[in-house]
This record gives sequence, structure tokens and C-alpha cells, in this order.
Amino acid sequence: MRKICVVITARASYSRIKTVLTAIQAHPRLDLQIVVTGSALVDRFGNIIPYLEAEALPVSAIIPNLLDVESDTASAKTTGLAVIELATFFANHRPDVVVTVADRFETIATAIAAVNMNIPLAHIQGGEMTGNIDDRIRNSISQLADLHFVATENARARLIHMGLSPQKVFYTGCPSIDLLHRYKDRDFDPYEIYGGVGSEPDLDQPYLVVLQHPVTTETGHSKWQIGNTLHAIAALNIPSVWFWPNADPGTAGTAQGIRAFREQHPELPFHFFKNMESAHFIRLLKNCACFVGNSSVGIRECSALGVPAVNIGSRQRGRERGPNVMDCIPDTEAIISAVRHQLTHGPYPPVTLYGKGHAGERIAEQLANIPFILKKHLLPA
Amino acid sequence: MRKICVVITARASYSRIKTVLTAIQAHPRLDLQIVVTGSALVDRFGNIIPYLEAEALPVSAIIPNLLDVESDTASAKTTGLAVIELATFFANHRPDVVVTVADRFETIATAIAAVNMNIPLAHIQGGEMTGNIDDRIRNSISQLADLHFVATENARARLIHMGLSPQKVFYTGCPSIDLLHRYKDRDFDPYEIYGGVGSEPDLDQPYLVVLQHPVTTETGHSKWQIGNTLHAIAALNIPSVWFWPNADPGTAGTAQGIRAFREQHPELPFHFFKNMESAHFIRLLKNCACFVGNSSVGIRECSALGVPAVNIGSRQRGRERGPNVMDCIPDTEAIISAVRHQLTHGPYPPVTLYGKGHAGERIAEQLANIPFILKKHLLPA
Amino acid sequence: MRKICVVITARASYSRIKTVLTAIQAHPRLDLQIVVTGSALVDRFGNIIPYLEAEALPVSAIIPNLLDVESDTASAKTTGLAVIELATFFANHRPDVVVTVADRFETIATAIAAVNMNIPLAHIQGGEMTGNIDDRIRNSISQLADLHFVATENARARLIHMGLSPQKVFYTGCPSIDLLHRYKDRDFDPYEIYGGVGSEPDLDQPYLVVLQHPVTTETGHSKWQIGNTLHAIAALNIPSVWFWPNADPGTAGTAQGIRAFREQHPELPFHFFKNMESAHFIRLLKNCACFVGNSSVGIRECSALGVPAVNIGSRQRGRERGPNVMDCIPDTEAIISAVRHQLTHGPYPPVTLYGKGHAGERIAEQLANIPFILKKHLLPA
Amino acid sequence: MRKICVVITARASYSRIKTVLTAIQAHPRLDLQIVVTGSALVDRFGNIIPYLEAEALPVSAIIPNLLDVESDTASAKTTGLAVIELATFFANHRPDVVVTVADRFETIATAIAAVNMNIPLAHIQGGEMTGNIDDRIRNSISQLADLHFVATENARARLIHMGLSPQKVFYTGCPSIDLLHRYKDRDFDPYEIYGGVGSEPDLDQPYLVVLQHPVTTETGHSKWQIGNTLHAIAALNIPSVWFWPNADPGTAGTAQGIRAFREQHPELPFHFFKNMESAHFIRLLKNCACFVGNSSVGIRECSALGVPAVNIGSRQRGRERGPNVMDCIPDTEAIISAVRHQLTHGPYPPVTLYGKGHAGERIAEQLANIPFILKKHLLPA
Repeated sequence: MRKICVVITARASYSRIKTVLTAIQAHPRLDLQIVVTGSALVDRFGNIIPYLEAEALPVSAIIPNLLDVESDTASAKTTGLAVIELATFFANHRPDVVVTVADRFETIATAIAAVNMNIPLAHIQGGEMTGNIDDRIRNSISQLADLHFVATENARARLIHMGLSPQKVFYTGCPSIDLLHRYKDRDFDPYEIYGGVGSEPDLDQPYLVVLQHPVTTETGHSKWQIGNTLHAIAALNIPSVWFWPNADPGTAGTAQGIRAFREQHPELPFHFFKNMESAHFIRLLKNCACFVGNSSVGIRECSALGVPAVNIGSRQRGRERGPNVMDCIPDTEAIISAVRHQLTHGPYPPVTLYGKGHAGERIAEQLANIPFILKKHLLPA
Repeated sequence: MRKICVVITARASYSRIKTVLTAIQAHPRLDLQIVVTGSALVDRFGNIIPYLEAEALPVSAIIPNLLDVESDTASAKTTGLAVIELATFFANHRPDVVVTVADRFETIATAIAAVNMNIPLAHIQGGEMTGNIDDRIRNSISQLADLHFVATENARARLIHMGLSPQKVFYTGCPSIDLLHRYKDRDFDPYEIYGGVGSEPDLDQPYLVVLQHPVTTETGHSKWQIGNTLHAIAALNIPSVWFWPNADPGTAGTAQGIRAFREQHPELPFHFFKNMESAHFIRLLKNCACFVGNSSVGIRECSALGVPAVNIGSRQRGRERGPNVMDCIPDTEAIISAVRHQLTHGPYPPVTLYGKGHAGERIAEQLANIPFILKKHLLPA
Repeated sequence: MRKICVVITARASYSRIKTVLTAIQAHPRLDLQIVVTGSALVDRFGNIIPYLEAEALPVSAIIPNLLDVESDTASAKTTGLAVIELATFFANHRPDVVVTVADRFETIATAIAAVNMNIPLAHIQGGEMTGNIDDRIRNSISQLADLHFVATENARARLIHMGLSPQKVFYTGCPSIDLLHRYKDRDFDPYEIYGGVGSEPDLDQPYLVVLQHPVTTETGHSKWQIGNTLHAIAALNIPSVWFWPNADPGTAGTAQGIRAFREQHPELPFHFFKNMESAHFIRLLKNCACFVGNSSVGIRECSALGVPAVNIGSRQRGRERGPNVMDCIPDTEAIISAVRHQLTHGPYPPVTLYGKGHAGERIAEQLANIPFILKKHLLPA
Repeated sequence: MRKICVVITARASYSRIKTVLTAIQAHPRLDLQIVVTGSALVDRFGNIIPYLEAEALPVSAIIPNLLDVESDTASAKTTGLAVIELATFFANHRPDVVVTVADRFETIATAIAAVNMNIPLAHIQGGEMTGNIDDRIRNSISQLADLHFVATENARARLIHMGLSPQKVFYTGCPSIDLLHRYKDRDFDPYEIYGGVGSEPDLDQPYLVVLQHPVTTETGHSKWQIGNTLHAIAALNIPSVWFWPNADPGTAGTAQGIRAFREQHPELPFHFFKNMESAHFIRLLKNCACFVGNSSVGIRECSALGVPAVNIGSRQRGRERGPNVMDCIPDTEAIISAVRHQLTHGPYPPVTLYGKGHAGERIAEQLANIPFILKKHLLPA
């Protein structure tokens, strides 16, 4: 049995690789270790423990390490703590492969701990481009990894061009796409299940889904940026379902902006959720009139679903996108006009840019079969 | 005044960038902050504090963080601690640019702390290739850095090919070359100045300089590998000056191998130094008959000096080299025969592969002049 | 010049020892180093940096280390980080004496770092008793300290009884008392200076000051406990000025309780401040009709001022108190009845239980004069 | 089942509480969790993992955290890391009680992590006195602990006098005494089993056992102190078996002193062991002519065995001792004369100062039965 350790640092990463986890767990020759750390343990950023439990996915360890977001040292220190404590986990549980996901600042901690301990490192979702600091983290992790599972053909080409061995870069598609076609209707009441705050607009009317994170290189502007989005949707006065931002630097500004606006405008048809299980989120997304924000959801999931998306600002700059995406600057008027355009246009034809499903199983299969050159076990001749 | 923070984690890095430090300090528009951490603070790996003091270079802070090398978590945990404490240093001293050097495992800590705090990061000696784990660390840091000062034209091409902006990659040559031509004769007595242990062979006879580090992906073999080198030089029975290995994983094995051999063979014409100021080291190297080991010194400094070098094993695989280097596997017979060949051949013509000097000043000048796009200060339109 | 390093981890500690800081700074033979860490750097718990700057007190270093309060590992990890980074500070700045204050969980970090580095440790406010977990932390620090500055005669007796040397235990009074008599009227508008939220009740009417922290051994009840206080004061419907709790475990519950209540009852004559400079806080306190909560302010400052105080629950159990304090359980009815009693009674005669002023100067004088047996410098005969 | 977590930070602590571990493991209502950390994981200070495995004692986790001993921040940083990572262990394994042992600097980390997480803390060997910095650490831990298992009646009295509740302080005797009477003859060849270095003196002749640690408040003198002992025993020229010092601050000096002396005097009848299983160590001790050094073994185990002991210097100052102990200053002549006296005197009658055996079982029984007031579970009325 190969021991595969997957380190999850954020709700978004969990949603993205859920089918990888279930495929590893189901695989007869793989032994799954899940480590949960960072914002993925914090309720207000989306604690994933209940979801893992609901799916009967085993949690090998939790490593609480998120620093209070107020200091600009918080992300560095959270990363440093993660390196230290993941090393201890690896020393105790001796995984054969460590898996890290995407490009959040703490994911590099997983890479560093694994590489420093000579444990083969697999990276999911390398080779993409968003045009911001995430690119640097993502490419940096790609350079550290031994094995790459990429979401698009372009991403594979980019990694190989960057000097990585073609034998180690596998195009599997994005596992976040695997689940998309499993659900169809919005057959649940999100207010009842998830609570949240705000008015409860009628979701049988056309509604928006909004998810806007701070931009890590523009942290001083996060309040102003979310403010423009809030004003734009307020002007449109359409039912909308908002999600709380992740724990990136700048999140305090985004959160403050939302909280202040919400208190001043209780009359608007806005509802705010902290968190939602991905199965529910997908159903909500699939049935919305338009996605608004700067999450990769607008680019990735929405392209496969054909949902119109308005992508705001620089956070996804450079990421491959389908025809469903309309970009705009973080300006109230620009957002209003882009959303209006998308509502008028309506659904787009789905595209398979990010895969056709089964990414989870393909990744598990490779993890079970690839012959690792286990440098640590090389014997003298 | 731009505040330039240089983080030094190992004796070898200090030797390499000494002329960068003096050039920054001499520059009228730069304010130098030096942080010393990792093995660069530990006597038996080469404490650089006395050298900095001797050069009147200012130490802004020491950050002692080296874990006891016995655990295989040590390098990860040292890195994690470095990220945490460098973040605090940056929060207190607010450098405008952070400079990190080369490819040792802890240097990525500097990169991560700087990137997470939105401080522009400059990397010296990116783009080289050695064919081992150092490549991964080095390329990973290059992906995180904003500014690159490279040692060779090939290194520049490699970084640009990897996707980095040509405007940010500067070919300056390697600062370690700057000092080489300043000294000529070995006009000092190393035994008197540096003590050390072992017999004191006559350095007016042809002598070897030996510097062999553990290979980080072959840590279990470090004792066996140094043992082969020790036996080879013993068989040759030539005066030789040995240097202690750095603090990489596996160093305990190398150190043990040296210590045990030395106790058993006090009669051999071997002398062992823990440490030596680079001005002295260069003079010793310049006048030796042959360099032996796996340090980049054999490739880099020796090529510029025309000193014959025997490069053992995989540690420098892939690094650009001049005609002065003869490679061999870590096998006693192979080493004996390679050293014999080089002694017979004698000095080689120097080559300018790694620059022609003045790298330190060029780097300082770029640090003073380049217009940083300070992402953190971007204002809303 | 003796270098005296004072480590401040919370707003409350700063307020308490402000006169010690100014006395050290004014002393001709003392050199003051202030390190600010923990919740004292976080805006929503009371960032003290602006206050230090306003007083021209020098900040030698900030060490941001507060973990996100949601995890029950947060206080331990904040403490661990503090030990690590204070050690680095001490290694760089080599204080002759380190000063730690009172009994918050992170203050033991200061003690451990100093003791492990053989630096004499002075403790302010040892020997008191509150009957909860703080006693353990406080006594534990007393056992580690070399020098003790205590607030009451009883505290001195208790430390000596505990086995500490009488020569090392100095009764100086509590420095928090030093400032009390400097101010008289409430001659400022707190709403204008500090903002805050809620209605702005008329402070020329009799008003309450409320400050209730979570109880660290009852963290699960913090929301319920603050709820009872909120309901009690709401029932009394008296103008009241509330302060945000400190960053102890359980603070999220307290904060949530306040936030929810405030949103539901915007009509009440309650105003909420995050923070207030001590000079202003004292004036506000001095002129209030009654103090309510579980802060030591009710016991310590109010006894010297003769301000009636209602002390709720177990947090101050065992602390020496004057006649001005009425204790009650954290029950709505009990609180209502205690506050009514105190309002009817009116001001009490001040008592000098916690000193008569000049504690700051006395402490500075001892720090300058006491002959430390510097164990680290003992030479062999 | 109550989960009892015992944290072991050093070989000496393990030897001391071995019978507690086996008694907890054997107890039908206790579930044993062992965490090994600090120097107890490092070969050259006495890695205890092989001994635990040999006894079939379960290791729940290892936490490698020892910093390189060269820096004077090492013990503080090791302690800080321990607090951080023990908190994670406790969060994952939720012990009902945490047990910490004696007085080494890192043991306070266990106490702090447990107290900050509201887990009841039991302390073994509180209340003793040695007259040095260990007293401070030990008393500091006693103040943090909920439950105390003490080795002597005096220790119990001292803790109660210090203000701790008599209901929480149990006189059980020292578990290190439990094993002493199980073995009689030295029926094994230590050279064969443990290797070590030096000559192999005949242990059928009268021989000494020497174990001298650095003194944490006199770290600068450790080399000089061990030097005096080495010279004294050399002058006596008696067969002697030496043990390596523990990982306290100053250990580098002690180790250097031993290493240098050993290389210069290979002819002396000295043998040096890094480590020895306690069953073997006891047999070696029981049959020696005299114990020499500053370990508590000379005071504690030797008093119960009646073995003459020479106790050097200040490390055990104040510890209760039987008639078998002769104290002397760390001076060559003083040591020579004290050892001569003891050799002339020969064995002493055993005393039961530190208990009569069965301490391990008594402690396990209390851990199973004592009704913890679990403050964290208190419910509102």
C-alpha cells in the first residue's frame, strides 16, 4: 500500500479535489492520509472538518496554525508554522507521496516540508496562469514537485516549457469538474441548511452568486474593491447570494466592507453565507443567472457549466477562460454594465477546457502506479 | 535611501557575495541591512560574524535557528523558523528589497517571507543547473523573485526560457569571481591563523584542497562517500588541506567519516580546517595543485583561476564548467586516477565563464536604480 | 547603563505599567527597550503602538504572534512563538534585566525565554490571588523570576511564604495607581476621540463603565456570561460605556454576544469602544456611577478611586479588595440587584490597598540599583 | 478509559519513570499515550525510541525539536517549539491528563501547552530542592500542575507550604527506585552490548561510574568543570565508566572537554558510553565502587542502593541526600580526596528516603481514580 498524504489548507482547495480524495480512498493499493490546516480549520473561513466527516473521509491530523489576519506577517508566519508541523507529521506518518493543491500561499509549506524530507511531492493544478502573485507561488511549487497533475493541455505545455520532465506531467483535467454534471436542480433550501445573514431573496427568480476575494498584491484596496461590487449589485437590485472571502491577506478589509454595507442596507435582496458544501454550491451555481467576483469558480466551473460570469479585476488575469467570461475592472459602473450584458446574453454552451470529468480517478491511478525514483532509498552499488 | 536587506544563511553564501555587500555598503543611495541565520551562526559550520566584523559590515540581526542535524526534519524546521522570524525582522525594519543567494534549502525561507509580505525579492545566482535537488530549490526561488542577478549568459537564457521577464534578469557575472584576482601568493600561515587539527604538511610542496559536502538526496551515503575520498587521498599520500562540510542533511555522516578516519590515521599529511576567511581561502586555492571534492568552488572559482579540479559525484551535475574540471564517481579508484591525471596536467588557462569581476558593483547599481513596481503601493485610479 | 527590556503583551498590561516605562526612560542609568507582542499589536484588542508613540516611548521591536483565536491551541501557540522570537530579541539586544507583567498566558513566554538565556527576570504584580487559572500562571512566573515588585503587602507576604527570598521581593504598590490622582474631571468627548459604535448616551447623567472578559477556564460560557450582563444593563436602562474584551481564550464568544445584542438593540443607551488611552479611561472611570464586569480595574483602580464596582463571576475570586466591591454571580437578576445597590450607595472612601502612587519610580530605582548576581558571568576562582 | 499522555524529553526522565509507563499501560482503565521529544530523540544524548520499542511501550508521536546546542537561544527555542507542537498533539489526541516529569527546561513546555488548553496536568517529582535553576523550573511547573506525585515526604510538605492543595499532592516515592532491587549482579558485558569508545578496563576490579552534566547557570564553565573531573580520575587511575552529558545548555563544552581529554589520554582505563538501558545502568551502578559526578543518580538511586557517591559542584545543592553522599567543589584536588574517602569507606546502608518501590503503580492508580474537576466541562446552572 502506498501512503498518500493530502494536505488541505483552505475550503476552496477541498472543494476542488474532493473527487481525488474519494478516488484515493477507494483505491485498493492506496492508503489515504488527510491533513487539515490553515483556514480550512476556521469556521469563519470555512471549516472543512464537518464535510470530511460527512463524506467519511479520514482526518489523520489537524494542524491549527492560522495567525490573526491583522498583521502583514500573518501569512508568512502561518506558512512557517505549517512547514514545522508538517515535518513532524511526515516524520511520524512517513507518507510515500505528499500531495499539494493549487497556489495558495500556505501550499508552498507542504512542498517545502516534503522536499526537505526527500518525500516525493505531487502537485495538482500546476501550470495555470492568473497573472498575479498566485502564479509565482504556483510555479514555485511546480519547480519543487516531482509529479504534476494538470487541468488543461496548455498547463501541461507550460510546465514542460519551464523545464519539467514530460514524463512527470500528466494532463488529467481539473477534479473540480468531476462533480459538475452529477447534480442538476437546486433542490434544497440554502437558508434553512446554512443559515447565514441578510434578507432571503427568492431563488426561483434569476439570481447572482457573488464570491470576491482580496487580491494579495493589492491588500490595501480590498475594502474599496468589495465596496464597488456591493454598490454595483445594489444598483442592479437583483437577488444575490454572497460568499465570505477566503483568509488571504487583505481579507479583513473585504470582510469589513461587506459587514458595514450589510448593516447599512438591510433592505437589499442580498444573503451572505460563510460556507457551503460543494455539492450544494454547485447546484446553486448551476442555476444562477450570472456569477460575479474574482474567484476561479467563474472561470473554471462556470465554463464547464455554461454559466455567464463577470470576472472582476486582476486576480484571474491570464487564466485560460471560455466564452462565458466577461472581464471588467473593479469599478461600480463597469461591473453594472458587465452584469447587465451577461444577464441579457443568458447561458453559454459548456466547454471542456478544464477536463471532462474522472480527473480524481486518473490522479489516484497514477499515484498508485508511477514508479517513483525514491532517491532516499538509493543504495550504493 | 533604499533599504537593501541581505539574508545570509551559510558561510559559502557569504564568501560568494562578499563583494555585493561591500558594494551596497559603499553605495551612496543604498542602506545595507545584513541578517545572519542558519549555519552561518554556528562555529563548526563556519560562523561568519567575525568576518563581517573584520570587514566592518553591519549585522542588523542574528536569527539562530539551526536544528540539531540528527533528525531528518531538521532542514524543514530550520526553514520554517526562518520564515517566521524573517517576517518579524521585515516587519520591524521594512526593507525596500530583500536579497537571497543561490540555492541552499534555507534560502527559500527568505523568499517566502519576502513574497508573503509583498517586499520585492532579488535573487543572486538563479538559472544555474547542478542536476540535483538544489536545482529545484534554485528554480523555485527564481519563480518567487522579482529581480534576478545571474552569473552566466546561459543562466540568463534559462530563466527567460522559464517564463521570467527579460527586463528583470540581469547578467552581472558571479560576485565570487570579483575577488579572485586581487590576491596572488599564499603569503600567510593557515595553521597559525586558523588552528585546525591534524598534521601540518608543508604547503610549499604541491598540495590539494579538499571540500566535500553531503549530497542532500543521498544523505544515507555521506559517510561512505567521504570515506572513499579519504581513502583515495590517503593512497596518494599528498599534502592536503581539508575543509569541514556545510550543515546540509547528511552532514553528520560526513563529519563522522572525517573524524573517525583522522583518529585512525594521524600519520597522514592531512590538515583539517573548520573555516577560513575567503581572502585566505582564495590564496590557498590559487596556489594548490588540484582541488578535490563536490563544492561549486571547483567549478566556479577554479575555472576562473585555471586550477585543476576533480569533481566527485552528482552534486554539481549539470553546472556549466570550464576545461579545468575532471568529473569522477565517488569511488576510491576513480578519485585516485582523476587526481593523478590533474596533477600531471597542471594548471589550465583561466576562462571567464562566470564573469570578469565587478559583479558586486553591478548588482548594487541595479538595486539602486531599478524602478520597482511596488505592488503594495498601487493606488486606486 | 543597564538595559531594561519590558515585554508588553496586552493593552491592559500597558495601562498598568505605563508609569514604570516613563520612570525607566527618565532614569539616567537605565536604557529602556520595549517589545510589543501578542494582542497589544492587534487593533481590535487594543493596539498600543499609537499610545507608545504619543508618549514618545521607544519601541525596540514588535513581534506579531497572535494566532487566530478560534482554535483552542491558539494561546499555547502564541506563547510558543513568543518564546522563540523573544529569545532572538534577547540574543540581539542583550538586556541586563527582562521585565514581565502580571499574569496573562503569554507573559510566561517572557519568563521562559529570559530564564533559559540566564537573563535576570523581574516580575511586576506577583503574589496576588484571583482564584482562577491566572493564579497558576502568576505563581509560576514568580517561581521563575529573580526580582519581584508587588502591589500589596499581602502579595509580598505570600511570595515569601512560597519560598522566595525576602531580599528579592519589593513592595512598591501597583503602578496602575500612580496615574489615578493626576486627573479629575471627564473633560473630553470620548465619542469624538475614539469613535466606537452604538448610541451616544449623555455622560453628564450617571453612567456605568462595563468591561467583562471571557474566563479562561470557562471559555465555553463566555457568550452566555456576557449575554447575562447585557440583559441586566438593558433592564436597568442606564447610560453605559462598554469596552471590548481582551484576546483571552473565549473572546470570540464574548465578542459575538456583544455584536449580536448590539445589532438587535440599537435603541439602548449603550456605547462600545474598542480601546482607550489610559489617561482618558481613568477620567471616564473616575466619574462613573458604577463599574461593572470582571476586570481587575473594578478591584484595583476603583478601590483607590472609591468608585462602586460590581464584580461578576469567578475571574477575580480571591483578589484583595476594598469595601467598594460588590461580588455577584453571572446571572441577570444578580447583576441587576448588585448594580442597583451600588447606585444607591454612591461613592466609597478611597483605600490605599494597592499603593499610594510612585510605584513606577520605585521600580525604576530598584532596577538601577539592585546588585544582580549575574550567574552567567561568574568566573572560576 | 482515561487517556494519559506522558511527554518525555530526555533519557534521564525516561529512566526515572519507566515503571510509571508500564503501570499505566497495564492498567485496565488507562490508555497510554507517549510523546517523545527534545534530546530523547537524539542518538548522542540518548535516543529512547529503541528502549520503548524493546519494552513494547507505544510511541504515539515523536516531535523532533532540539536546536543546535551552540546558540544560547537553543533551549528557549526548543521549549517554544515544544509548546507549539504539543498543542497540536493535544488537539488531535485529546488526552484526559497530561503528565510531565521533573525539572528539565523543556518540561515546562508540556505544562504550558496543557494549561493553555485546559487539560489537567500531573507532575512527577515536584517539591524537591537542588539549589539551582532547576528549582525554579520545577517549582514553576508545580504551580501550573493540577496533580502532584512526589518522591519524598519533605517534597510533599514543601509543595503544600507553597500553597498547593494537600488533596492534590500525593507522596508515592520516586519511581526510579522501583527497579533498583530487581537486579543484583552485573551479569552482562557493557562493551559488547553498547560499544562506546576508550579502553576497556576490567569491571571485575573496583570501578567508578561517572556522569557529569553542564550546570545551566554556569554554562561558560562546563569545559573547565569536566576537565577537573577528568584530571582527578586520571590521577586516581582507577577503572571508570563515563556517560555522555545530557543536552542542557553548556553541553558542547562538556563534550569537547571529554573528547579532547580522551584523544590525549588513550592510555587511561576510561570507557565512554553514549547511552545505556536503565536495567543495565542500574546493574553497573549497583556494583561500582563509587559514583562520581553531578547527576541526581548519585543522590537518589545511590542512596537506595547504598553506593558511595561523590557529588561535584552546585547542580544538586539542596537536594535531600542520604549518608552515602560526599559533596565537593569542582576542583581536581577536592574530587581526588572525596573519591579516595569513599573508596576507603566502601558501601553504605541503604535508605528509603526516595521511597520503597511501587511508585509506578501508585501513580497509575491515582491517575485512574482521582475525580478531576474538569473545568472545561463546567455547565451553566
